[in-house]
Amino acid sequence: MRNIKLLLEYEGTDYFGWQIQSDLPTIQGIIQDKVKRITGENVNLIAAGRTDTGVHAKGQVCNFMTKSQLPAISIKKGLNALLPNDIVVKDAMDVDEDFNARRKAVSKTYKYLILNRDHPSSFYRRFSWFISYPLDIVSMREGARVIIGKRDFSSFRAVGCGAHHAIRKIENITIDRTPEGLLKIKVKGNAFLRHMVRIMVGTLVALGSGRITIAELKDIVEAKDRTLADMTAPSQGLFLEKVEYEVHDRTSTAI
Amino acid sequence: MRNIKLLLEYEGTDYFGWQIQSDLPTIQGIIQDKVKRITGENVNLIAAGRTDTGVHAKGQVCNFMTKSQLPAISIKKGLNALLPNDIVVKDAMDVDEDFNARRKAVSKTYKYLILNRDHPSSFYRRFSWFISYPLDIVSMREGARVIIGKRDFSSFRAVGCGAHHAIRKIENITIDRTPEGLLKIKVKGNAFLRHMVRIMVGTLVALGSGRITIAELKDIVEAKDRTLADMTAPSQGLFLEKVEYEVHDRTSTAI
Repeated sequence: MRNIKLLLEYEGTDYFGWQIQSDLPTIQGIIQDKVKRITGENVNLIAAGRTDTGVHAKGQVCNFMTKSQLPAISIKKGLNALLPNDIVVKDAMDVDEDFNARRKAVSKTYKYLILNRDHPSSFYRRFSWFISYPLDIVSMREGARVIIGKRDFSSFRAVGCGAHHAIRKIENITIDRTPEGLLKIKVKGNAFLRHMVRIMVGTLVALGSGRITIAELKDIVEAKDRTLADMTAPSQGLFLEKVEYEVHDRTSTAI
Repeated sequence: MRNIKLLLEYEGTDYFGWQIQSDLPTIQGIIQDKVKRITGENVNLIAAGRTDTGVHAKGQVCNFMTKSQLPAISIKKGLNALLPNDIVVKDAMDVDEDFNARRKAVSKTYKYLILNRDHPSSFYRRFSWFISYPLDIVSMREGARVIIGKRDFSSFRAVGCGAHHAIRKIENITIDRTPEGLLKIKVKGNAFLRHMVRIMVGTLVALGSGRITIAELKDIVEAKDRTLADMTAPSQGLFLEKVEYEVHDRTSTAI
């Protein structure tokens, strides 16, 4: 058996997320369908991160086992010819049989875009959360420093999250603003709970708008109680940006 | 009468261009309809550049005369509340009665995006021309230097173009490539013929792919004959980026 690793980019707008569901369009479902057209096999795609409905990816990684003898470059070209134009295979390659896109990932980086100015954008409407009231980026950065670290993130976890425990390590959060008013929040961590980035962003926005204080944010983090954190930021601002693996594997980069 | 200047951004994908047409969605038609909802008046919007079907704008400028007493900021907010989210008013302001967005423009800058790599993009599919064969950016820049200047641009003019003559001045053409394979071609000139930028881009692509030589490009420019230049680049890669006016007017910038 060969093990094929795919690097993917997709716009999530028209999909019910990564994970296959009967009768609903999903990223996994569409790609598995096209792999079957090419190889004749029913494969099971394992993704680094199961993105939710409406969430995008610039550097999603997945893998599948196959008996097909097609070169990886032909799998890439064949899939790109068959896939709808909101899903793109950026790279395809043979990897060791024990590679697993989810279990072997050592870090993931998500990006969240907020358009923060007095008027919306025709170009970023599908790719950002539009907030017209002012956000204080300095206090948001201070809040990010409170969140960073290895801890129990129960306060930043969706109610239906099925993970065994909520201990995660957030290595880094950066917040930058472009001249056109786009706030780019990048969150890098070893693994993520369901809705974790979007709840963090919603809470940082509460801080940036003055609705909560740094002291209150610290209480929220300590409380390990989802009901205290702020709203979940909408899905269309979120991108799975990059997945990293041990150096002996190749690294997924969002090219 | 007041004269109101609007700075606009729009995604042209779903519109039959700027100019109003009965029974077809156009940028001018939609905005005039919303101005009527706000002021009760049938106004005539004058645009700096009448963009074609599918062409986008980051810094289109238009103006209209009104008897309405609404402050400009309320016109901006009112229009943004009523307009579909692919058209945005970035700014609205009162200007001198003799301001005319088309006649007073001293320069316009268009941007054309080519995605030049071996796989398409889910994010740029509506905003670029995807070309998978290699393009030589050095020879394209050499070609741009041949095109720049004040001359008769009949070779770069759509068959149906209604302009009285074809003398135009192209001040500058820049071509840059991003790490992700996006070629950004910016063309600045005093005024433009119909399809002029798109025919220039199509011809520069012919040069960059080796289908024509620099000597042949020079012949094309000299010949003043549209049948010699290459294909018209597709509309979805083109943006009206910026319109400039005399210093005593404010400048439209693509913020």
